[in-house]
Amino acid sequence: MTSFTSLAQAGEFGLIERIKRQARQGDNLLLGIGDDCSATHVAEGKVLLTSKDLLIEEIHFRRCWTDMYSLGRKSAAVNLSDIAAMGGTPLHLYLGVGLPADLSLTEIDNFSRGFLDESDQAGACLCGGDTCRSPDKLIISVTVQGSVSATEMLSRKTAQEGEALFVSGTLGDSALALALLQRGENPSDFLSQRHHRPTPRLALGQALAQHGIASSMIDVSDGLLSDLGHILKQSGLGAHIDQQQIPLSNEVRHHLQGHPDDEELILQGGEDYELLFSAPSRYSDDLEALSHRLNVPITRIGTLLNAEQGLTIVQFDGEEKQVEARGFNHFRL
Amino acid sequence: MTSFTSLAQAGEFGLIERIKRQARQGDNLLLGIGDDCSATHVAEGKVLLTSKDLLIEEIHFRRCWTDMYSLGRKSAAVNLSDIAAMGGTPLHLYLGVGLPADLSLTEIDNFSRGFLDESDQAGACLCGGDTCRSPDKLIISVTVQGSVSATEMLSRKTAQEGEALFVSGTLGDSALALALLQRGENPSDFLSQRHHRPTPRLALGQALAQHGIASSMIDVSDGLLSDLGHILKQSGLGAHIDQQQIPLSNEVRHHLQGHPDDEELILQGGEDYELLFSAPSRYSDDLEALSHRLNVPITRIGTLLNAEQGLTIVQFDGEEKQVEARGFNHFRL
Repeated sequence: MTSFTSLAQAGEFGLIERIKRQARQGDNLLLGIGDDCSATHVAEGKVLLTSKDLLIEEIHFRRCWTDMYSLGRKSAAVNLSDIAAMGGTPLHLYLGVGLPADLSLTEIDNFSRGFLDESDQAGACLCGGDTCRSPDKLIISVTVQGSVSATEMLSRKTAQEGEALFVSGTLGDSALALALLQRGENPSDFLSQRHHRPTPRLALGQALAQHGIASSMIDVSDGLLSDLGHILKQSGLGAHIDQQQIPLSNEVRHHLQGHPDDEELILQGGEDYELLFSAPSRYSDDLEALSHRLNVPITRIGTLLNAEQGLTIVQFDGEEKQVEARGFNHFRL
Repeated sequence: MTSFTSLAQAGEFGLIERIKRQARQGDNLLLGIGDDCSATHVAEGKVLLTSKDLLIEEIHFRRCWTDMYSLGRKSAAVNLSDIAAMGGTPLHLYLGVGLPADLSLTEIDNFSRGFLDESDQAGACLCGGDTCRSPDKLIISVTVQGSVSATEMLSRKTAQEGEALFVSGTLGDSALALALLQRGENPSDFLSQRHHRPTPRLALGQALAQHGIASSMIDVSDGLLSDLGHILKQSGLGAHIDQQQIPLSNEVRHHLQGHPDDEELILQGGEDYELLFSAPSRYSDDLEALSHRLNVPITRIGTLLNAEQGLTIVQFDGEEKQVEARGFNHFRL
């Protein structure tokens, strides 16, 4: 690699060349980094999936709380998670970065290494993007493309009354890590990993789609209530959730014993990037087998009702409560 | 439209609903705004084109110099221009916005109206995106997708020695408008339009690709020398440019008479979003006919040489000069 020591020396096109050399070439890639557009093939009979996410310093992350390699991995992972939530296979990633002057070339290299490692692991390749200066904050903009068979694709609007609601992994880990950081405390390694290095549940998402098990799916990025709310609203349904059933890590369970006020982190805390999906309860055995095969916990947390019944939660104290589906709102005062 | 008066009242999902209601539905759209991913069809036998651009306040624009409607149009237009540069047809746009607290809902509405008007005019539809808070600067991230036949697609790397170099429209208008704004002067309406309301040359790009006239193409976003440099580097060529032949508007021509020092705006000024392309000179008559039909000036500005001959320019004073291909570099000190 050319040994520039600063971004000013490397220049915009030097930086793009640097990243390009690290990126692997995809099979269906006609033109990758370095033209006005990338040019790719989408396999016949497949649907093209596209999602994009902005990550802005001070809003989505703080540089003092994360290393740049993890930030690179997370920037790719949160986008890949959207492909997982459709049951799709990731193909291409596009990375736009607005770089503040105080960011060193080493930091940028670490970031792009993390981004590319996460992409490689998911079988996706970096096909283009945009690099520019930013006045002060680091700005990361990622677009992901994937594909899925039209008949297998899982949206938010196809859940059915009477089906069961399931969630993968554990909830609240990422939100607890963030809450601790905000309070000036140090989260455990486990919680830190869950916050800074989320795992997109790609294999699970694909299996649920391909075996026709799930009827609707979403990834838990804004919080359980908010993301469940999207399924309920778009499918025209209500739901009944048992808080006792929500899968918690030992760390979260232990923390809640000492801090019962943090209970809302489970229902409203975002960024776990687990999959929340609906499925007929007759698939319980298949789901158990899938959980073992993929080594990902899958837990039934409730049942889908009709819209008039709204969303009710059986709380830890056994009391039933009617709630509003809401989670993180970027514009709340 | 629900009459929220502030962004905090509307909320993130209120804002997305607001934009969704204004957006038209595309024919090849299975799932649009409001799921984890959009789901779209790419026509069989076509190549998928993708490009993305970040626009950051204080780097790419100043809110005191532009109205929000124009900024919306420009945000779409600069991305559509990348599709034009491949000879492609735009299909889908994705809009990510990081919104500072001082931006009003009316300003956001004007921005999205501009974005959607520009998309509609190009026959593209808004299929998804991301909305979030930004600490202070307005951040705009756009991804565009289009399609083109693999055999017609125009890249930067397929120019041939001996071919002629052509450019559409006039060069330097946008850069002069920006230079005047930076000096505290008022650009004329014409120059302002050229800077704040660039026109993606979609019909021209498509015609050049479909008729097999052009052999390589790029849009002039970073400046003539920089963008020509990409074609030369990727095609392994040199070039000879006659500065007298570079098409100038009356405004730029008049300005240069009084300010000869601003000459570099023609060669190095970006953001004209005109098409620069190579073609065998036998197509001169076809290009003249095309220029008349589409009402877009097309001007021959030079000839492609072999790489050893480098890039030479015959200056206004008739002197020949060897130059480096360079334009706007985001990271130059």
